Amino acid sequence: MKALRTIPTLLFAAAALLAGAQAYAKTVKVTLTAKEVDLPIDNKGTMYRTWTFDGQVPGTVVRVTEGDTVEFTLINDKANKNSHSVDFHAARADVVKDFESVKPGEQGSYTFTADYPGVFFYHCGADPMIQHIARGMYGAIIVDPKDAKAMPKADREYVLIQSELYPNPDSQADMMANKWSNVMFNGSIFKYDPVHDPNASRMLQAKPGERVRIYFVNAGVNEFSSFHPIAGIWDRVYSSGNPKNVQVGLQSFVVGPGDAATFDLISPKEGANAIVTHSLRGALSGAIAIMQFSNDADPKAGKGDNILVR
Amino acid sequence: MKALRTIPTLLFAAAALLAGAQAYAKTVKVTLTAKEVDLPIDNKGTMYRTWTFDGQVPGTVVRVTEGDTVEFTLINDKANKNSHSVDFHAARADVVKDFESVKPGEQGSYTFTADYPGVFFYHCGADPMIQHIARGMYGAIIVDPKDAKAMPKADREYVLIQSELYPNPDSQADMMANKWSNVMFNGSIFKYDPVHDPNASRMLQAKPGERVRIYFVNAGVNEFSSFHPIAGIWDRVYSSGNPKNVQVGLQSFVVGPGDAATFDLISPKEGANAIVTHSLRGALSGAIAIMQFSNDADPKAGKGDNILVR
Amino acid sequence: MKALRTIPTLLFAAAALLAGAQAYAKTVKVTLTAKEVDLPIDNKGTMYRTWTFDGQVPGTVVRVTEGDTVEFTLINDKANKNSHSVDFHAARADVVKDFESVKPGEQGSYTFTADYPGVFFYHCGADPMIQHIARGMYGAIIVDPKDAKAMPKADREYVLIQSELYPNPDSQADMMANKWSNVMFNGSIFKYDPVHDPNASRMLQAKPGERVRIYFVNAGVNEFSSFHPIAGIWDRVYSSGNPKNVQVGLQSFVVGPGDAATFDLISPKEGANAIVTHSLRGALSGAIAIMQFSNDADPKAGKGDNILVR
Repeated sequence: MKALRTIPTLLFAAAALLAGAQAYAKTVKVTLTAKEVDLPIDNKGTMYRTWTFDGQVPGTVVRVTEGDTVEFTLINDKANKNSHSVDFHAARADVVKDFESVKPGEQGSYTFTADYPGVFFYHCGADPMIQHIARGMYGAIIVDPKDAKAMPKADREYVLIQSELYPNPDSQADMMANKWSNVMFNGSIFKYDPVHDPNASRMLQAKPGERVRIYFVNAGVNEFSSFHPIAGIWDRVYSSGNPKNVQVGLQSFVVGPGDAATFDLISPKEGANAIVTHSLRGALSGAIAIMQFSNDADPKAGKGDNILVR
Repeated sequence: MKALRTIPTLLFAAAALLAGAQAYAKTVKVTLTAKEVDLPIDNKGTMYRTWTFDGQVPGTVVRVTEGDTVEFTLINDKANKNSHSVDFHAARADVVKDFESVKPGEQGSYTFTADYPGVFFYHCGADPMIQHIARGMYGAIIVDPKDAKAMPKADREYVLIQSELYPNPDSQADMMANKWSNVMFNGSIFKYDPVHDPNASRMLQAKPGERVRIYFVNAGVNEFSSFHPIAGIWDRVYSSGNPKNVQVGLQSFVVGPGDAATFDLISPKEGANAIVTHSLRGALSGAIAIMQFSNDADPKAGKGDNILVR
Repeated sequence: MKALRTIPTLLFAAAALLAGAQAYAKTVKVTLTAKEVDLPIDNKGTMYRTWTFDGQVPGTVVRVTEGDTVEFTLINDKANKNSHSVDFHAARADVVKDFESVKPGEQGSYTFTADYPGVFFYHCGADPMIQHIARGMYGAIIVDPKDAKAMPKADREYVLIQSELYPNPDSQADMMANKWSNVMFNGSIFKYDPVHDPNASRMLQAKPGERVRIYFVNAGVNEFSSFHPIAGIWDRVYSSGNPKNVQVGLQSFVVGPGDAATFDLISPKEGANAIVTHSLRGALSGAIAIMQFSNDADPKAGKGDNILVR
C-alpha cells in the first residue's frame, strides 16, 4: 500500500497548542487522484475496466484522529474520460457543493472536521453513482478516537471492503437490476483464500492471543453483509467503529451497503478462521478471506502501512 | 397533514388523577378510515390504484404518550371493495380477534395500552397482506416517552416511510416475486428530491445546529433499508425509537421491512444532505429525500402537524 | 425431541472442584450423527431429500453452560453418500482441521470451550456448504450464561430456525442464484400456523404474563430475516443471545443468514401472536409461527426437551 498522503499543517498545530486547544486536533491535508485503469479482479489476473482512487481498488486508506480538520483535494487525472467526486461518510458537508463532480484535468477541494470517531466508507458520488462505486471507486477512512484508551489496543489491524462484481462495467442497467456475478473483498474474487482458489497467494495473519482489529466497509452497491468469522467469534463489534457502540461475543453482524463497522477477533490457538459474508451465495462466489493464526506470523503484517493487503 | 383524531377521554383522565395515577396516562380515541382511491406516485402526477388510510399515503400520523390507553376504531368506507384491518406494531394484542378484517361499510374496534415508547409501523393486515401494504395501507404511530427528558429535545421532526412500488397493483404474484420497479419515501418517487427530479417541489428543511429527528419506518414489503444521510452523520439512532436503545455517530443503520427507528441529524453549517437507503438501486430509483439546512428555513416546517410533508 | 447427548465427564468435574475451579465449568460430550433421509417439508407430508443431523431438521438442540469444555464427535452414518462436517458458531477453532469433512462410515472429533454465552448456529460445512445447509444440516447450540441471573428467568423457551426451501435439492446452481420457493421455520412450510394452513396441527404456546424466550437462528442460506411478533413486541432482544447485548421494546430485529439472537416475549392477555420474518414474501410463503397465549397452556410446552416442537 502506498503511504498515506496526510501532511500535518505544522503551523496550525503549533498555533493550536499555543492557544491551549486540545493537543491532538490538527489539520491534515488529504489528496486522492481519480484514475481510470484496468486492474485484475481475480487471482488469475483477469482484467476489468476499473475506475479507482490512486490507481488501486480499494483506494488509499485515509487515517486521521477525531477532531482533526481535513483539507481534502480530489485530482481528476486528465487522462480520464469521466467526472468524479468524493463522498466521505466521515464528513458533515454540503452534498451539492462539497461533493460536486470534478471534470478530467481539474481538481476540487473541501474541508471538514472529523467529528465522530470510527471507520467510514468513502466513494465517488458522481452520476451514475451506482456505476462509479461498482467499478471500484471506494475506500475506507479511519477516524481514530482522540481518547486512545477508548478501545482495547489492537495488535494488528486489517481493512476489508466488500463489494459486488458486475460482469459488464458499462451496464448501469445490470447494476440497477442487481445482476452481479460475484461478491469480493478488497476488489478481487477469493483474493485472500488459498483454500478455495489455488491461484490465491495472499491471506491475513496474526498470532494466537493477539487482538486483531478489522475495519470492515460494505461498499455494496446493493447487497447487505452478514459478516462472520468461520471458526471464530467477534470478541467485540463497534457499529460505525464508534467506541460507544460496543457489542460483545457476536457470531455475525449485519452491515448494510454504505455502512462500516469495526470487529475484534482473538484466537486462543494456532489455526485458521475464514472471514465471510454468511449470505452464502456471496461467500461462495468470492467473499472469503483466510485469517491464519500462527506463532510464526510475519511481524510486519497488519501494522502501519500494511493494514490493507495489496 | 390532517389533524390527528386523538380525543382525550377527560373523565378517565380525571379519575386517574384523583386516584393518584401517573398524570400523563390518558385514554386516547384514534380512528382511521380505509379508502380505496387513486393517488399520484410521482411528481408528474402519474396515478396509481392505491388503498389508503384516510385517503392518503402514508396514512395519518398517530401520536400518543407511553402509558396511554388507545381506543382504536377502523372504519371501512362503504365505497370500498375490499376488507381491511389495522395492525399497530405499538400494540400487544390478539392477532386473530383484534386485527380481524372489517368489511366495506362496517367498522371494528380494539383497545391497547402503549406500553413501549418509540416509533412503530402500522399497516393493514387483511389478506393478502403483502398487497394491502404495497398498495399504500401504512403509516407511523409515535409513542412519546413519558419521561420527556429521556431523549434530547428535537427542534424539528419528520416522518419518512420507505416502501417499494410494484407496477401492477393487482398482481400479488409480482409482490411475492419481489418485482418492484422503484423504492420510495412517503409514497412517491423522488418526492422530496429536486436534485434528481425537476418536477419535485418539496423537500425537508431545518436550520444549521438544530436537532432534526426523523421517525423512519420501513414498510417494505420485502426490502431491507440501509438508512443513510449523504453528507451527514446520524448523531443518534434509537432502535424502534426507544430511548434506551441509543447508538451514536452512525453513518448508516439497517432497518428491516416491518421495522422502524428514530434518527437524529445535526448539520454544523448551511447546505444539503440527501437521505437515502444506501442499497443504491433503491436510492437511485426513487428513495432520496433532500434535507436542506438553511438559516432561512421555514419556522413551521417539521413542527406540529407538519412532521409529514404532504 | 430426542434427549440431548450431553454426558458430563464426572472425573474431570470432580478434579475441577478439588482444584477450586469454578463449579459450573464441566466437560460435556456431544455427538451428532449425519443421516441422509427423506423428511416432510410441509404439513401435508410432501417429502424432500433432506440431509440431517440425527435424522431430524433442525438437528438436536445442543445445550451447555458458558465455560464448559465440549468434546464433540461427528458420526457420518455409513449409509450416507456424502462427506459431512460440523461448524459450531459457538466454537473458536481451526476451520481447516477441526471443521474437516468426515467420510461416510467414519467419524471425527474436536474439542472447544464455550467461551461466549448465547445462542449460536451450527451447520454442516462440507463442500458445497450452501447445499448441505439448504438440505437441512443445521441446528442451534445454546450456551447458558454461567451467571444464572444475567438474564431474567424465562418461563418457557422455544427454538425457531429460519431457512429457505430450494425445490430442487440437487441444484447448487439454484441455491447460488437464490431461487427459493418458500421460507420456513424449523424445516417445514407453515409448520406452526393453523391460521394459514388447515393441515397444521402444531403451534407454540404459553400463558399470559409468562416470559417466553425464543432462541432464533437464521440458517439462510441467503436471506436476511426481519424477525417480528405480529400483535406483540419483543420485551428484550439479545444479539447472539449474549446478556450484555440487550435492547428493549423492539418491534423487529434483523438477523442475518448465519446469525442468531435471543428474543423475549410477554403477552398481557390471552390471544395469539404470529411470529414472522416481516420480509413478507418470506412470511407468506411459509415463515409464520403462531404463539398461542392461553391460561390453559400445556404446562410441559416450552420446557426441558420440549423447546423444539417436533
